[in-house]
Amino acid sequence: MAKQVSERADVLPLLGEVFREHGYEGASLARITAATGLGKGSLYHFFPGGKEEMAAAVLAEIDGWFEREIYAPLRDGADPAAAIDHMFAACDAYFRSGRRVCLVGAFALADTRDRFAVALRDYFAAWVAALAAALQRLGRTEIDAHAAAEAVVGAVQGAIVLARALGDTAVFTRLLGEARAAVTALV
Amino acid sequence: MAKQVSERADVLPLLGEVFREHGYEGASLARITAATGLGKGSLYHFFPGGKEEMAAAVLAEIDGWFEREIYAPLRDGADPAAAIDHMFAACDAYFRSGRRVCLVGAFALADTRDRFAVALRDYFAAWVAALAAALQRLGRTEIDAHAAAEAVVGAVQGAIVLARALGDTAVFTRLLGEARAAVTALV
Repeated sequence: MAKQVSERADVLPLLGEVFREHGYEGASLARITAATGLGKGSLYHFFPGGKEEMAAAVLAEIDGWFEREIYAPLRDGADPAAAIDHMFAACDAYFRSGRRVCLVGAFALADTRDRFAVALRDYFAAWVAALAAALQRLGRTEIDAHAAAEAVVGAVQGAIVLARALGDTAVFTRLLGEARAAVTALV
Repeated sequence: MAKQVSERADVLPLLGEVFREHGYEGASLARITAATGLGKGSLYHFFPGGKEEMAAAVLAEIDGWFEREIYAPLRDGADPAAAIDHMFAACDAYFRSGRRVCLVGAFALADTRDRFAVALRDYFAAWVAALAAALQRLGRTEIDAHAAAEAVVGAVQGAIVLARALGDTAVFTRLLGEARAAVTALV
């Protein structure tokens, strides 16, 4: 399981998996060491603030990825319709990768919700705002675009909960497809 | 905070709050004692299997409540449309009560998902099946009724994630209202 990592950035995806698998409370030093191959000294070299800093860095990494890959094209890209397609494809690819839990959504339901409240709020607010911006660029009113964006982001999160609970990836595919069809019907 | 409880059934809602607030891993004996007013001896008298039995009992209590209050009227009640209205009203009342996390959904995203896999799957499968049964009784085909039921249960769970993350109860109200409108349009 353990991989050799030598850069802080290399550690973040491995830490993300530990938090996804075991939650914040369950992410023990032993599990983090097993997953990263790093001892306590190296971990505290990269993350002097300990586990709280690790989780904050993972959330920031996820948020940064979404900003570059998803939000910026929706907000500012040349082709908002293509950016919406890309968003749905990225959600599908993420789920199919086997990770199957959105760490930000999981943190929002767990005892981590207060500890990371600002990061969790900013992530979802940015997602809704970027998708709403794309829908406005495609001719929807501000109110309609915001309502539709909120419904889509909610549907993606609900699809993850339901697919996880039912142990059935087809549920995710169906619900994502329905959300996509609702957006396509709008624009 | 602590209340005097003398029956096992009285302990379950208090335990539910501890698991909702702190998650499974974070529900320490100290927190459980503080919330229930029961010492280790009394707790193990009620729950010889320890914390795992406590969480299983809380899930069974929630499932039993849903079976009586929500699923049975949807499946077998005299008025399926009224049973659907009652389901949405109950979701709304639950969220407004201040608890604001569906413990079953939260467990499905956490490291509890494998430990309680059967209970989590049964809960959501029963909810989808009961709502689909009501929609079939109102004239929808089996396929359409199942798809709509899955979308509604997913939307409720997504609404909880998004409202929690954004710290905005109005988001829950809006998304629940949209799910309800979609069902009303169907029947």
